[in-house]
Amino acid sequence: MESGQRVSEPLDNARLQKLSVVEAANAIARGQITSQQLVRALIDRIEAREGVVRAWAALNADHALAQARACDEGETRGPLRGVPVAVKDVLNTFDYPTQMGSPIYDGWQSRNDAACVAMLRNAGAVVLGKTITCEFAGTHPNVTTNPLDALRTPGGSSSGSAAAVADFMVPVALGTQTGGSVLRPASFCGLVGFKPTFGGYNREGLRFASECIDTIGLLSRTIEDVACCDQVLRGATPSALAPLEKAPRVGLCRTYMWSLAQSETRDCVATVVAQIEAAGVHVEEFELPPHFADLTEARAIVNDVERARSLAWEWTAHRDKLSPGLVKTMESGISISDRDYRDALWQVASARIEVDLILRRYDVVVTAAVNGEAPLGLHYTGDPSFQALWTLLHVPSITLPAHRGPNGMPVGIQMIASAGDDSLLLLAALWMQHTAYIRMEPKA
Amino acid sequence: MESGQRVSEPLDNARLQKLSVVEAANAIARGQITSQQLVRALIDRIEAREGVVRAWAALNADHALAQARACDEGETRGPLRGVPVAVKDVLNTFDYPTQMGSPIYDGWQSRNDAACVAMLRNAGAVVLGKTITCEFAGTHPNVTTNPLDALRTPGGSSSGSAAAVADFMVPVALGTQTGGSVLRPASFCGLVGFKPTFGGYNREGLRFASECIDTIGLLSRTIEDVACCDQVLRGATPSALAPLEKAPRVGLCRTYMWSLAQSETRDCVATVVAQIEAAGVHVEEFELPPHFADLTEARAIVNDVERARSLAWEWTAHRDKLSPGLVKTMESGISISDRDYRDALWQVASARIEVDLILRRYDVVVTAAVNGEAPLGLHYTGDPSFQALWTLLHVPSITLPAHRGPNGMPVGIQMIASAGDDSLLLLAALWMQHTAYIRMEPKA
Repeated sequence: MESGQRVSEPLDNARLQKLSVVEAANAIARGQITSQQLVRALIDRIEAREGVVRAWAALNADHALAQARACDEGETRGPLRGVPVAVKDVLNTFDYPTQMGSPIYDGWQSRNDAACVAMLRNAGAVVLGKTITCEFAGTHPNVTTNPLDALRTPGGSSSGSAAAVADFMVPVALGTQTGGSVLRPASFCGLVGFKPTFGGYNREGLRFASECIDTIGLLSRTIEDVACCDQVLRGATPSALAPLEKAPRVGLCRTYMWSLAQSETRDCVATVVAQIEAAGVHVEEFELPPHFADLTEARAIVNDVERARSLAWEWTAHRDKLSPGLVKTMESGISISDRDYRDALWQVASARIEVDLILRRYDVVVTAAVNGEAPLGLHYTGDPSFQALWTLLHVPSITLPAHRGPNGMPVGIQMIASAGDDSLLLLAALWMQHTAYIRMEPKA
Repeated sequence: MESGQRVSEPLDNARLQKLSVVEAANAIARGQITSQQLVRALIDRIEAREGVVRAWAALNADHALAQARACDEGETRGPLRGVPVAVKDVLNTFDYPTQMGSPIYDGWQSRNDAACVAMLRNAGAVVLGKTITCEFAGTHPNVTTNPLDALRTPGGSSSGSAAAVADFMVPVALGTQTGGSVLRPASFCGLVGFKPTFGGYNREGLRFASECIDTIGLLSRTIEDVACCDQVLRGATPSALAPLEKAPRVGLCRTYMWSLAQSETRDCVATVVAQIEAAGVHVEEFELPPHFADLTEARAIVNDVERARSLAWEWTAHRDKLSPGLVKTMESGISISDRDYRDALWQVASARIEVDLILRRYDVVVTAAVNGEAPLGLHYTGDPSFQALWTLLHVPSITLPAHRGPNGMPVGIQMIASAGDDSLLLLAALWMQHTAYIRMEPKA
């Protein structure tokens, strides 16, 4: 926890709100600031901005301050002591309702914390509140706006997690990704979004959408913050990332979906590749085997069947409270035979083995994160295609802000690695930022 | 649902209590009995026997009868209309507490049904109540006794599910298996126990023990009942099993744990093999690759790490209410590095691919289910070794009562198949029973 920028001047609210996880943890550990000061500054920010951003499903300032006070008074220890975090509202918290973006769960509160929440708390984190999700982490949008342009979607389904972090209401948030629910909102809001290898973070206390794909991830403003929280969620004590000793082997995969990429995405990928090559590293382009295009259909089968089964109770008891889109997905899932479902699972499992052989030729593979900048309107959280393939394949993925679209909105680049190579991916992402200067240019 | 024995004479309580799932569903569908009659008969049985057996964690006769009445009055439809089922107390039910065998959850009630419970209900089943589990589906025993000998363990962790079905309190129960928590109690109580391929039944609403291994399964008194409920849990309409058109290719694997097998287990396997060969089918013995013995250690790593993470909230908030054995398991899990955990997961994933190549040479493989009959005492639920290997490998497994031990207690035989070949396994099990006459001889 000695990494990150030093903070030495007295900190006003604006500065406190901009502290990263690592900076905040260090400042609190050194006694330069208290957790209560930090939490108060964030609550000020939330009070000022929440009317527009609408990121929070549940937040209790007194309770957050009480947690911070316990940290300041030494009752709580750990590498994240006093650091505020936000939790997507499909993860259980014993002290806040878990409403899952569905009226069926209005005010419902679990008995316990989800494993990932408890692990953050056990490391000293203050749970500031719950962030808004699309209905059951699906595609039905909620009320959150993009903090960079309130007329645009923040992306989904981790909408509130992305908006809260991007708006400096909290330095880090837990999200979940079944299609592209971490990386897409991260890209749309100009954040770092990280999805570990499937199963990286324990899923006890997560409301499942599609059990075989759902992955818990992180949204924050720096790679170092992701790495710090990643280590905590793996039961380790965070340590600063040691830079790669040599440049990574870099692949480029436009995928069979490249025709979906808008000009800003094409420009983003081209710019990133040019910068990597300018740093002296050859970028080797490759194509996925043609039959990988069939994974779109296999993914739909797995997703629809698993959503239909996981919501079997809600289907019978509260169908009138499900969105029409979700009802349609579930009807699709119910109509698919178990044989077709298992065939799709088998097809996906084979593709995972096949892609592993391809990805092992590289340390990191660059690919589009999104098809473009955040679209206008709050009725649609954007196209998950460029994220969903890699989620399905269970490989770790990260997005970094790398470009701006025609409307000045951020466009992320996605980087992936072989399953299990999460640490390598984070180190490669750091290399991209520090050596290849992959970062988003300031707004014009 | 036209399979199963016909029931034509008027049914007294003793006969009602012995109805199988298929028989009960048919009798209710034909109007020969009502669900209320059946539920009343089972409640009578429970009232008479629960003082000794102690199978139930939650049961409400009025509520069960109200469900049955709704079925009888036609408000509920489906292939299991009016059929009572029991639910292991680590699966959520909206109408009964889910207490997980832990004082931490005394009286706690979920908002919804677990997916598998809702799917049974949507098929018309009556949820009779919750059955007792070991603490968080682990090894710390609860109060249930073996209905065949109250001085002996029923096995665990699905202790109440096994005892209730074996004692004719309910025809079928949901269980879960992380080590051997379905097949061991099934064997100890003389039941059919079935664990599908990992992921066979949706796990939404299951309290995880070890997320990468936990599998929901079924305990009942007939293979046909398992097959019927299996189809419902896969979203299908149950149909009678068509017998195998030709004899199965049968393998025999004693495993590297054979030295653990007591004489009754050795006799059980020998008898079963002799009967299969007497039916004209050669049984081909094979050995697992020697490095499979390392899976015992890999399993311990995965199990301990995942239990520690999934119980992170309970660890901090209620450590004094965890059993000493569970605390020890969690301490082990906390001490294991994420690197070692991921290496163990990788080792297991490789073994799954390797075992698939072996198992595909057979339709079904015979192996020991348990090391012997149910041991004396309620302090220990028995040795999970013979079940845990196959659970870890994600293959489907079933146990049938096949033998009796020196104390007259049942000893099951285990049969396994390749991952995904669940239907073939059920058909092979039927062949074993009907053609090779694998069944438990009457008690001397």
